Amino acid sequence: MWPNRRLLDLLGIELPIVQAPMAGAQGAAMTIAVSSAGGLGSLPCAMLDEEKIRAAVSLIRQQTGNPFNMNFFCLRGDPATAADEARWKDRLAPYYSEAGLDSTAVAPAPHRRSFDEGLCAVVEETRPEVVSFHFGLPDAALLDRVKATGAHILASATTVAEARWLVEHGADAIIAQGYEAGGHRGMFLTRDITAQPGVMALTPQVVDAVDVPVIAAGGIADGRGIAAAFALGASGVQMGTAYLFTPEATISDIHRAALHSAADDQTVITNIFSGRPARGLINRIIREAGPIAPEAPPFPAASAALAPLKAAAEKAGSGDFSSLWSGQAAALARDLDAGELTRALASEASQRLALLAGV
Amino acid sequence: MWPNRRLLDLLGIELPIVQAPMAGAQGAAMTIAVSSAGGLGSLPCAMLDEEKIRAAVSLIRQQTGNPFNMNFFCLRGDPATAADEARWKDRLAPYYSEAGLDSTAVAPAPHRRSFDEGLCAVVEETRPEVVSFHFGLPDAALLDRVKATGAHILASATTVAEARWLVEHGADAIIAQGYEAGGHRGMFLTRDITAQPGVMALTPQVVDAVDVPVIAAGGIADGRGIAAAFALGASGVQMGTAYLFTPEATISDIHRAALHSAADDQTVITNIFSGRPARGLINRIIREAGPIAPEAPPFPAASAALAPLKAAAEKAGSGDFSSLWSGQAAALARDLDAGELTRALASEASQRLALLAGV
Repeated sequence: MWPNRRLLDLLGIELPIVQAPMAGAQGAAMTIAVSSAGGLGSLPCAMLDEEKIRAAVSLIRQQTGNPFNMNFFCLRGDPATAADEARWKDRLAPYYSEAGLDSTAVAPAPHRRSFDEGLCAVVEETRPEVVSFHFGLPDAALLDRVKATGAHILASATTVAEARWLVEHGADAIIAQGYEAGGHRGMFLTRDITAQPGVMALTPQVVDAVDVPVIAAGGIADGRGIAAAFALGASGVQMGTAYLFTPEATISDIHRAALHSAADDQTVITNIFSGRPARGLINRIIREAGPIAPEAPPFPAASAALAPLKAAAEKAGSGDFSSLWSGQAAALARDLDAGELTRALASEASQRLALLAGV
Repeated sequence: MWPNRRLLDLLGIELPIVQAPMAGAQGAAMTIAVSSAGGLGSLPCAMLDEEKIRAAVSLIRQQTGNPFNMNFFCLRGDPATAADEARWKDRLAPYYSEAGLDSTAVAPAPHRRSFDEGLCAVVEETRPEVVSFHFGLPDAALLDRVKATGAHILASATTVAEARWLVEHGADAIIAQGYEAGGHRGMFLTRDITAQPGVMALTPQVVDAVDVPVIAAGGIADGRGIAAAFALGASGVQMGTAYLFTPEATISDIHRAALHSAADDQTVITNIFSGRPARGLINRIIREAGPIAPEAPPFPAASAALAPLKAAAEKAGSGDFSSLWSGQAAALARDLDAGELTRALASEASQRLALLAGV
């Protein structure tokens, strides 16, 4: 039924749909729903501690015997300095004044953890069938331990050069993340967002460059996009924004409402919410301070100073300071639960593929 | 053989491939080769006067009875002022010094003409089967005259909003120009390049928004991309960069060599060569003054001050100041003549479509 079974056979899944791990926007419920439906559900772990990961995996294992994916960040580079954070606070000071907030208060920021010994030990203990990394790969010693568990390794490439690097360093399949994709870009060999390729151009070039299965991501939100990914030579797709419309997504009502009215030309890549480039719906803070703010401190420090502004605005029903992550195809999404969505997407895609050959 | 015949039936062509009109990079030879092969060859007219257009059409009509496309620009907005041009000259002055050139000399710039009475009269006289417009559409009075000749009207949309506008104003088919596309972006309702959608996201959203056939453009350079366009709901594709590799392209050896070594992440959208956003290979002047230079004067005035720098650099074998137009998929292109390429692309695409359904 599927024109290319490389990803299905590698991962032992039935449907060629990877649900994108979305830290802060979903937990085990979405993972369970997608994996139960035959796709690859993902559990984003970058904002969880060991105990929470163990609890989530326990829940997943109770509900499904199907493979699932555990996702981690690989963070390198120096963290933000006090001077970096002060510069950002200065840039945002007028908004603090406007909101009547004290800009000298220390704000708690959501924690984003890089893959480390402790998280590696949880992988060894919980043994997910698939482990995916964003922003490159961990050091060889840690990656070898993950591979020794038998887990298949997925990693995101935003260019052909990144895809080659990831395969050389141990990835078993490549997520070709096009410019269209919502949320954080996995880019790690370049910082230049102006030269990032769209998924139509990126996918076949990655397919030609590496020998492993390629998963197309970005701008895909219905069966047409899945069929197009196969046409380009991909063995499957990764979809995020489409799953933000499901009840399993733990996003705010503000974010959900913004997604429901999103058009094709209402997202940009911005660094203001975390310090790293990520695609989201254009709102006031992006319009006024972004989309790329030179004052934003290194990842993930930018979120700390925004947190009080976001909290105050959201309390008043406004998403002016919220990261409203979205790819460019939100308008193609529909309201279904995550299991139904996975099955509907697969069904649409296979009908589309049959139609293309006049079958 | 083709899953969607709407464009073929509308235009009376055999293969669903529109060769992108590329002003300054091709003439009638490419038009003839593509139309003779069964695709839609295009004659870019924005840099030609009436006599040259008549001569080109005469040549085309002698060589093929198949439909072809005549392309024009629709320019609105104020032209550059003397102050605009002086500011740009100032920005470029250090390069004039470096090259030993006199920056006060008046440089001849390539002419870019907006569609007007004179050009409309040539359309009425030569009666091309298809007329395409870039940067919107002409005023209703001129467009009505073109339509009265029986010509089918194509126009480029970079967003869903532009697609809707073009259909409301008389376009018979829409070219959905994704962010990946090389050369000038057809954008005319927005100036914001940061929110431009990729073709994977744009195509199905345009298909859903308008009732006319949609032609996908951007990042498509082989049969896989053509098959993907059909998967997304398009009725055909427009391809430019792939045709720059043919002997019919009249580009410089420097441009040709740059295209042959281009990777997926080596182009950006820049305004420095003309004043309007266009995608090309990154070179020295883009790196140092761009990609978006606030000092660049309105289209097409930016090219004038660059012309002497370009001429001097090219004489020394360098493309440092040349507009090396390219989309993001140059690495997928191959060296064939334009007729062979058209047939090879169609053959690859139809094989790919059959393969997708396991036929």
